Amino acid sequence: MSTDCIFCKIVAGELPATKVYEDAHVLAFMDIGPIVKGHTLVIPKAHFDPITRTPDEVLHQLISVVRKVAGALTLGLDADGINVTQANGEVAGQVIPHLHFHVIPRFRNDGHSWNWNAKTYDGQDEMDALAAKIRSRFND
Amino acid sequence: MSTDCIFCKIVAGELPATKVYEDAHVLAFMDIGPIVKGHTLVIPKAHFDPITRTPDEVLHQLISVVRKVAGALTLGLDADGINVTQANGEVAGQVIPHLHFHVIPRFRNDGHSWNWNAKTYDGQDEMDALAAKIRSRFND
Repeated sequence: MSTDCIFCKIVAGELPATKVYEDAHVLAFMDIGPIVKGHTLVIPKAHFDPITRTPDEVLHQLISVVRKVAGALTLGLDADGINVTQANGEVAGQVIPHLHFHVIPRFRNDGHSWNWNAKTYDGQDEMDALAAKIRSRFND
Repeated sequence: MSTDCIFCKIVAGELPATKVYEDAHVLAFMDIGPIVKGHTLVIPKAHFDPITRTPDEVLHQLISVVRKVAGALTLGLDADGINVTQANGEVAGQVIPHLHFHVIPRFRNDGHSWNWNAKTYDGQDEMDALAAKIRSRFND
């Protein structure tokens, strides 16, 4: 437990949350500031952050619960679609530095749209050069 | 293989892609329309969609590679943060109906920001009612 972490305090029962699922390793609860109502957070009970320093075993536990939350949002709320998002670092929009997956139900006319402004590469060479840099550190 | 699926054609070598990682089950390659340059897609080689109909074993393979791509973007491109996103359904912004995780490097002053307009619940009762509906279909 990280003593100043809001999510660790929720896990410990020191702060309230509206839970939708709990097992020995994973907790899922309602985000109080939903992008779309029904927005659920899936977190490890142990404190991990960011994804690059989280063991595979924990990620496997989390993504299995994410799948189940996605199914429950689809069936329980009649959602038309689901977004799964996970941010690492303030620059990525992360607010609470305890690994969490957002599972967000989407509905026709829900009033939300992501800012998905795709850029373009300056040719294949630029993309190849970046890919080479990524491959060079893949197993580090 | 789904014969009309662009990602299945990439897996089969019938369409080009700039690959960053490949194993028996998972392929990672550059998104040609990056949100931020270095934006990588992680897909299962077999055709699955959406996340709710994808076996846990496949999701485990994928999230382990997502973690490794996140690490490679951090080290190889000196990224300051990482976004992981996954969309299910057109209403959620999904374009190619073959399960895929976006792994997006983020940099200070990269010019991107998500549209994260949080809503508020009309009190605890509304949130409780939605949570009850979600819990009711959790294992369906």
